Amino acid sequence: MSAVSLSNLPDRVKIVEVGPRDGLQNERALIPTAEKIRYIDLLSEAGFATIEATSFVSPKAIPQLADAAEVFAAIRKREGVTYLVLVPNERGLDRALEAGVRAIAVFTAASETFTRRNINMTIAESLSTFGRVVHRARENGIWIRGYISTCFGCPYEGSVPVESVTGVAEALAEMGVDELSIGDTIGVATPNQVVDIAAALQARLPVERLAMHFHDTRGTALANIVAALQMRIAIFDSASGGLGGCPYAPGASGNVATEDVLYLLHGMGIETGVDLEKVRRASRTLAGTLDHELTSKTFKALEAAASH
Amino acid sequence: MSAVSLSNLPDRVKIVEVGPRDGLQNERALIPTAEKIRYIDLLSEAGFATIEATSFVSPKAIPQLADAAEVFAAIRKREGVTYLVLVPNERGLDRALEAGVRAIAVFTAASETFTRRNINMTIAESLSTFGRVVHRARENGIWIRGYISTCFGCPYEGSVPVESVTGVAEALAEMGVDELSIGDTIGVATPNQVVDIAAALQARLPVERLAMHFHDTRGTALANIVAALQMRIAIFDSASGGLGGCPYAPGASGNVATEDVLYLLHGMGIETGVDLEKVRRASRTLAGTLDHELTSKTFKALEAAASH
Repeated sequence: MSAVSLSNLPDRVKIVEVGPRDGLQNERALIPTAEKIRYIDLLSEAGFATIEATSFVSPKAIPQLADAAEVFAAIRKREGVTYLVLVPNERGLDRALEAGVRAIAVFTAASETFTRRNINMTIAESLSTFGRVVHRARENGIWIRGYISTCFGCPYEGSVPVESVTGVAEALAEMGVDELSIGDTIGVATPNQVVDIAAALQARLPVERLAMHFHDTRGTALANIVAALQMRIAIFDSASGGLGGCPYAPGASGNVATEDVLYLLHGMGIETGVDLEKVRRASRTLAGTLDHELTSKTFKALEAAASH
Repeated sequence: MSAVSLSNLPDRVKIVEVGPRDGLQNERALIPTAEKIRYIDLLSEAGFATIEATSFVSPKAIPQLADAAEVFAAIRKREGVTYLVLVPNERGLDRALEAGVRAIAVFTAASETFTRRNINMTIAESLSTFGRVVHRARENGIWIRGYISTCFGCPYEGSVPVESVTGVAEALAEMGVDELSIGDTIGVATPNQVVDIAAALQARLPVERLAMHFHDTRGTALANIVAALQMRIAIFDSASGGLGGCPYAPGASGNVATEDVLYLLHGMGIETGVDLEKVRRASRTLAGTLDHELTSKTFKALEAAASH
């Protein structure tokens, strides 16, 4: 590889597979519990170190994930894999602890309006709520991930100041959140912005604690990942097949597709420990339960090649 | 913008809009001539400096472009816009000259097998054929673009040596071809490869003569464009709406979408002179004549936002 501008990238990247939670949560068709379990088991076999399996959210709020306890109990827990679950509040934490969960994710945002509309709290209130959740989780030896949404733009406010992102990130880190996922919830980020936000975060926090979570709504997700790699970020979230449309733009793409990310990283000589072909099989298995085609371009190209 | 790794990019980029030729050529539905003219006129209004309008190829080989002369005669030639046409051989050049064309493109590849299967010549034969076309075109004061396909990988041979790319590029440049478009015909490139090939080409040719032509078959096109920008390449080909599937992978994406490229570049503060909203209108106008949805993610996101 030429040293001109893509030198000094991480040798190895951790992919956090968010398809079973962030992906399915935004799917209209109700997926049978058995299909979810089968899907997660196939993802485990593909080699991910971390899989976000479900969310202990109110079943009324998100009927798709009402079977959280059942799914978590039934999936095969593969040695060395972290099965992450989203926990919105203390009630969710109770249910997660009861289910034997060892790693949770909490969720806030960098934009006030988004936080209010999404979880009906101010950012300060959400931090206070999560403060209690995080405190109790830590007492129980639980590993904790924090999602910060709308870091690159807000559907209501437009641009989001970098200081809002770093402020929330520092607050979560001080609370004891182990890993921070910096999210482009509406898929508006471009690489220059990724560099800016990554630089501001790294002035305050060690890069090992930082993940980035891109949506591919405007096709820029992989370009943003390359920019983040150039800033030494080595943890990325993605959903197999590109599961989960964008709730703020019906018909548009949501999470960046795991297959596309793997194709990019492996092509660049960066290790992930994940088997692309096995991810394709997991996506294809799930695809039959959805009411639309999967959006991953690499998945489509692999499927087209396989049908030849 | 942070100076860490995205500094020193070009301030301005030239987009070569290839939708009317490279895009439509790969569409199954036969587009009425009047629709093509309307589409090209809308593209002219959007501000492109160069539009590839059609191809003076054998009507038997590509029925979609049998109306080349009619289309070229009828489109409104906007001041300052280069209307490029593809010319496969001397017969094509005769027709193009007769039609009053002032800029042509010739087409070869970096892979022997691809060239043989695609135009039934060896690379040496294709260079000799184009040598006559280029010589006569230059005598007539015609500006000439050269496409080099399969520079990043071949559907038959797999990987393509960098020396094959630089060899063909140097041969075309010596012949007097003004601009070289380095193509990822099957959409397999990753950013490290872009850097390698750009570095090898720039050791031999001035960067001002180099364009890159990415297909988004595996979702990596925008990441590749950012890598190319970091190598100071400032000319990119794209098709509005992401027109034209990939002929080597049915159902998969073809040309990178102009809307996605514009969203990326404008977000990075790079000027193009092209109005994204006007490109969207051109794409939408054409969309009704196609037998599938357009693949551009930015187009879809804009359409979703507009329908709200």
